[in-house]
Amino acid sequence: AGNAEAGKARATVCASCHGQNGISFIPNYPNLAGQKEQYLAESLKAYRDGLRNHMVMSPQAKGLSDEDIANLAAYYSSLDPKPE
Amino acid sequence: AGNAEAGKARATVCASCHGQNGISFIPNYPNLAGQKEQYLAESLKAYRDGLRNHMVMSPQAKGLSDEDIANLAAYYSSLDPKPE
Repeated sequence: AGNAEAGKARATVCASCHGQNGISFIPNYPNLAGQKEQYLAESLKAYRDGLRNHMVMSPQAKGLSDEDIANLAAYYSSLDPKPE
Repeated sequence: AGNAEAGKARATVCASCHGQNGISFIPNYPNLAGQKEQYLAESLKAYRDGLRNHMVMSPQAKGLSDEDIANLAAYYSSLDPKPE
């Protein structure tokens, strides 16, 4: 599994759409907080490798290493899905 | 927006992977509880219309009407993302 602390550091750009706490600002962008770690990792790889396409996510994922992906997945899955 | 009660009735087959309460049993299948309604609807349409492909979700979504999709999205977005 990845390192959530390292994921948090890597997530600054993600927060602009997915929210500081992983709850998205944008109605058709998903909440990530508390999502399944493996699902998150597989989604990021799919965007990076072109199996899944999105105008924003595809370029965002292009530059991610496997380690970045594991850390981001660990970070977002560790967040509370219902922050107070 | 859709009708969550009607969505609940339509969701019996979804529950086998995504859980009775929208928290998935399977590590690389997403939790749906409390997810953004519009994101859920767009994802289901993408699977139905072939913009997004998955061995299980694509055939599942094939038979869904727009109304089914709206109701399922209303239902799952209404669920508590952190059930006790």
